[in-house]
Amino acid sequence: MRNETVKHCYLLFFFFLLLLSTFHSASCYRKPYTPHKPCKRFVFFYHDKLYMGKNSNLSNATSVAAANQTLLGNSQMGMLVIFSDPITSDRSLDSPHVAKATGFYFYDTKDTYNAWFAYTIIFNSSEYKGTINIMGADLMGVKTRDLSVVGGTGDFFMTRGIATFETDATEGFDYFRLKMDIKLYECY
Amino acid sequence: MRNETVKHCYLLFFFFLLLLSTFHSASCYRKPYTPHKPCKRFVFFYHDKLYMGKNSNLSNATSVAAANQTLLGNSQMGMLVIFSDPITSDRSLDSPHVAKATGFYFYDTKDTYNAWFAYTIIFNSSEYKGTINIMGADLMGVKTRDLSVVGGTGDFFMTRGIATFETDATEGFDYFRLKMDIKLYECY
Amino acid sequence: MRNETVKHCYLLFFFFLLLLSTFHSASCYRKPYTPHKPCKRFVFFYHDKLYMGKNSNLSNATSVAAANQTLLGNSQMGMLVIFSDPITSDRSLDSPHVAKATGFYFYDTKDTYNAWFAYTIIFNSSEYKGTINIMGADLMGVKTRDLSVVGGTGDFFMTRGIATFETDATEGFDYFRLKMDIKLYECY
Repeated sequence: MRNETVKHCYLLFFFFLLLLSTFHSASCYRKPYTPHKPCKRFVFFYHDKLYMGKNSNLSNATSVAAANQTLLGNSQMGMLVIFSDPITSDRSLDSPHVAKATGFYFYDTKDTYNAWFAYTIIFNSSEYKGTINIMGADLMGVKTRDLSVVGGTGDFFMTRGIATFETDATEGFDYFRLKMDIKLYECY
Repeated sequence: MRNETVKHCYLLFFFFLLLLSTFHSASCYRKPYTPHKPCKRFVFFYHDKLYMGKNSNLSNATSVAAANQTLLGNSQMGMLVIFSDPITSDRSLDSPHVAKATGFYFYDTKDTYNAWFAYTIIFNSSEYKGTINIMGADLMGVKTRDLSVVGGTGDFFMTRGIATFETDATEGFDYFRLKMDIKLYECY
Repeated sequence: MRNETVKHCYLLFFFFLLLLSTFHSASCYRKPYTPHKPCKRFVFFYHDKLYMGKNSNLSNATSVAAANQTLLGNSQMGMLVIFSDPITSDRSLDSPHVAKATGFYFYDTKDTYNAWFAYTIIFNSSEYKGTINIMGADLMGVKTRDLSVVGGTGDFFMTRGIATFETDATEGFDYFRLKMDIKLYECY
């Protein structure tokens, strides 16, 4: 009788090993699509104030064109802007800066306004210290568009996720505001 | 007798716990190198048609130099091209576009042709909606070269993998075609 | 008596299943912050020798400005440099090159020196073949600053981690040396 019971145990054990290996490989290479619940989320506003040349207000500008638009098309294709822009928790440019965004974007399409971004969100507050690195296409014609959070450092060590852009305001050529909804799905 | 059997069970249990923790940490930080089987794979062709100035065909061009080559070396070092290029499933530029690639590349070496790419593949078809973000070096002298898939959105939520480039055709200065073999190893 | 023992086994089994699922989801989405032990680590030196125009030494230069600094601020904001720079295991530029770094950086802030990098470390030695892709902010005013390792190929297939920069030397405008401490936390 004892032997039979032990056999039960061993059977269970190997069945479990099988289950585990299936479960593990599945979870590592094909993670379940739903539901995605971020482990951390930020919603805030990014303000880009472009330097427009000698007659514009140098003291306010936070970005500058390193390359100008080209003759290809009429949607500024080829213009590359380098920025060090403030991030606030509400719409007002005068609100306290919760973080900074440094990086670049450029317009990449000749027949419509599309941009491409790569940048770093830098936190240096009492709440957070560290950076979040983001890249991807900003399909400006769509209401919301997703870019990739590809890495992070400090409090955001090795993070990954999605940054959703939404145009919140455009004023002339020299100012626009994006609502950025940063969802982190891997937190360490 | 019963006590002894239960002891067997407990021994098995703790042995298993030990095994599991070893196995788990190993799999999370040193995943087995072979065999890599992609969870999704695309093989398609990328067409870059560079705008060559006032006398070239504006209507066909899909990319433009935002910065020109410099005096350093003779392999176009410093030239930075911004593109919004079509992707087809076969070699013909006239085939239906299965996706779009937007981003930039530049030539970065003075004594040989090497490029560096960062771009987004944008799918907006009945089959796929979403983006795949890629960056890395394009060592043009090597037959096939690997870049990193660093993220994705939509149907390619949080994906990672390898994009293998192979030069498929070069026609003058204003057209080249790359075969892109996109292998995704993390699908959610 | 036998039934009771088997019950013990089953109870253990389901308790274990519960434990496992908790443990697994926790480890996949909120990995423990401490202690981070890299699975691979490189400490080496990156040398950037900028081409300074017609009168400088063309044969030594390994990087070139694709876009020049702008009028915004006085810390070279807008200057974008494309490089194919040597990497050595010690401080001397004359030491054997253990790898190459190709990519770009630009200065992005008007009132202080800050840069932003995206580049690929290329290994082609008897020891390693493959690439490591890195991007992030280089906050030059801070002693050490972290960028993200966002991917890899070849021997560094799919790797992720942190690249820590430390300015090791600056000589005039045309040469600087960074100590790069590359820590990989995901090895396959």
